[in-house]
Amino acid sequence: MSQTATSSSTTTSETVFTYASPRLKFGAGASAEVGHDLAALGVTRALLVTDPGIAASGVADRVAEAVRAAGLEVEVYAEAHVEPSDASLRAAVEAARAMGPFDGVVAVGGGSSIDTAKAVDLMLTSSGDLLDYVNAPVGGGRAPEKPLLPLVAVPTTAGTGAESTSVCVLDVLARKVKTGISHERLRPVLAVVDPELSATMPAGVTAASGLDILCHALESYTARPYDAFPRKEASERVPYCGANPIADMWSEKAMSLLASAFRRAYRDGEDREARLEMSMAATFAGLGFGNAGVHLPHANAYPVAGGVPDGFHPAGYPDDHAMVPHGMAVALTAPESFRFTFEATPERHLAAARLLAPQRNPGDDARDELPSVLVDLLRDVGQPSGLAEVGYAEGDVPQLVEGTMAQARLLSICPRTPSEDDVAGVLARSMHNW
Amino acid sequence: MSQTATSSSTTTSETVFTYASPRLKFGAGASAEVGHDLAALGVTRALLVTDPGIAASGVADRVAEAVRAAGLEVEVYAEAHVEPSDASLRAAVEAARAMGPFDGVVAVGGGSSIDTAKAVDLMLTSSGDLLDYVNAPVGGGRAPEKPLLPLVAVPTTAGTGAESTSVCVLDVLARKVKTGISHERLRPVLAVVDPELSATMPAGVTAASGLDILCHALESYTARPYDAFPRKEASERVPYCGANPIADMWSEKAMSLLASAFRRAYRDGEDREARLEMSMAATFAGLGFGNAGVHLPHANAYPVAGGVPDGFHPAGYPDDHAMVPHGMAVALTAPESFRFTFEATPERHLAAARLLAPQRNPGDDARDELPSVLVDLLRDVGQPSGLAEVGYAEGDVPQLVEGTMAQARLLSICPRTPSEDDVAGVLARSMHNW
Repeated sequence: MSQTATSSSTTTSETVFTYASPRLKFGAGASAEVGHDLAALGVTRALLVTDPGIAASGVADRVAEAVRAAGLEVEVYAEAHVEPSDASLRAAVEAARAMGPFDGVVAVGGGSSIDTAKAVDLMLTSSGDLLDYVNAPVGGGRAPEKPLLPLVAVPTTAGTGAESTSVCVLDVLARKVKTGISHERLRPVLAVVDPELSATMPAGVTAASGLDILCHALESYTARPYDAFPRKEASERVPYCGANPIADMWSEKAMSLLASAFRRAYRDGEDREARLEMSMAATFAGLGFGNAGVHLPHANAYPVAGGVPDGFHPAGYPDDHAMVPHGMAVALTAPESFRFTFEATPERHLAAARLLAPQRNPGDDARDELPSVLVDLLRDVGQPSGLAEVGYAEGDVPQLVEGTMAQARLLSICPRTPSEDDVAGVLARSMHNW
Repeated sequence: MSQTATSSSTTTSETVFTYASPRLKFGAGASAEVGHDLAALGVTRALLVTDPGIAASGVADRVAEAVRAAGLEVEVYAEAHVEPSDASLRAAVEAARAMGPFDGVVAVGGGSSIDTAKAVDLMLTSSGDLLDYVNAPVGGGRAPEKPLLPLVAVPTTAGTGAESTSVCVLDVLARKVKTGISHERLRPVLAVVDPELSATMPAGVTAASGLDILCHALESYTARPYDAFPRKEASERVPYCGANPIADMWSEKAMSLLASAFRRAYRDGEDREARLEMSMAATFAGLGFGNAGVHLPHANAYPVAGGVPDGFHPAGYPDDHAMVPHGMAVALTAPESFRFTFEATPERHLAAARLLAPQRNPGDDARDELPSVLVDLLRDVGQPSGLAEVGYAEGDVPQLVEGTMAQARLLSICPRTPSEDDVAGVLARSMHNW
């Protein structure tokens, strides 16, 4: 209980936190019931949004068949882009308008498919241009005009948590910036999490998406607490309100599940209990960070993934272009980010280290505990040793710093506010984590 | 992880659980923002449902003023009955129709006000008679015709959890039976939990409502697990699906909060940190049992509270009529109920005892741990020593058994299915808990 019992009328500190989540259906076989669930939401003709990889795997077709089996019509849009941009979202909206009208949307895939579905749903229900709704100052920051069509999210990667959040992340190409559309109405009404859908993920994808889960939990657990912000007016409240007792609970549980399952799921993709626990960890972490927020490692990840140097081809991903997967991009600077934030809340950082490595004997340097636990894990799940190994050099640091500092919303939740020099230090020390 | 990794296609055990919750706004001063929250839901003219006691305390007026301050119209119905009946609900519906039309509902009070608001909202949006929607076989078991008006629940007692659940509990007078209306659409869209609203509760009310929280957490934590039921079809799923990893987490956290705060809040109602923790425990337990369900102690409570013998007047409650408060009625048979269910899941019962009394040295008899912890607590918060002290005698047991056995939905979630003789034994041993 970090909140002291002070009257709301005599304090200028925040006393209120908020929490929201989609309804959830979780378990092996849950995705077979999507047609029933859509029908219960009043849907008769659904748009299914997915990406080419998921379409090729046959998973999207299986879900589409399940929808048809319940007597609903469904049209499939299978061109969602990995790392959506304003251009890719506009293309999806145009295609949806041509195939419509629809009275519901179902997203099948990772964060890209789910975020694409959010943007399409928004533009099927509100007028104007996509950029009107993008967060200011890049976009107009306008709120949706009315409730969206019911959106059911069926995540196929245990990782992003996009099924739980109220944000759509996108690149605005002309501005060369990653930003988002963020409003409560974008949150899916139902998340259908079927661990069997993640059974075919290659080890490299399991590693990167698991690291994304890990950082969701760690960053929301160490985020600036809600009651360390100034008191907000009702109209100023945002979905991401900082660490709070409910988000903490989800994050703690997610970390315990990761401690049990992550290495097992990486080593043996057929370990169904480990897959189940990873799906649960992803969902729980999503419910935590979807209300608390993430900070420095995610802020760093945007420029790290966005400015991919030539030549890095991670195992388990398509080999046709160089990339740093999102979860890898987040995790590469995590050890040094948490060494930097340690002094803001030492007890939280130590508690996280204990949850992630309950058997470990603490070392002499408290500040080094969590970074050490993370480095052990990064090595065990086959990650590069640092930014240098994916192709960055010291000379790239200034440009990376610029990209990190642009993520003002994320940095505002950082428990210790970083200067440009602080960020440069974190990035430079992340060149070689071991 | 009680679920083993079996394929959904080769097992007849359930592999899927569901979870739903209202959005939540929690903290001191949260209730001042209700007008903004209603407006954000598109409400322009709200019905405020409360009961005479809350109206007299001035709390309902403060909330109504907050709604008006946001530019909305609001009409107040302040005649919600404690322990609603079909007659009291019909009266509320008639009054609401006369004051309408409305495009939103706000409930201010305990479970009775919130459940009355659910029923009114249902009948303002669906046609037919109230009994058409009451659970079969007492009523027609019909589903609401469409989504209800947005319902915002502002609980004023830290206890019932009605703000989290999708059920309205009522007495059907002609049938002399307590039953419910249960549908996902009845769940409030937003719960506004302001611990300052519970600051004036007398100690006796703090005790009884705290025991209700305790039994919500304990019963959902020890409920028959979701994967111990046969596999359901999509259309057969119910809001209460048995113990599951998410409900367990809420229940565990609620028990830890109770261990810290219950006795403090009872002894000193001005202890604002304790009040905050009790509000949080109530909310968390509600989010747990609202998805898992409750079992034997709540089943016993219906006849225990319903057949109140003459003469019992609990401290802290109005003195004008004899009554056994709901939380007291639940808790009086809890020690013996959990002695009965122990053998179904000994480890769960022991874990609960540890969460509730972390400092306690375990005794020799494992089966006696949880009952002993509960008896200590019941004594410390001034409860009667058993059913005898509230006026029951051995001769009343057969009639009480009949009332308990009628709660078939609750008993189906009991981890050990009780026979009539089992229930009679639990009730008889609950005459004197010490």
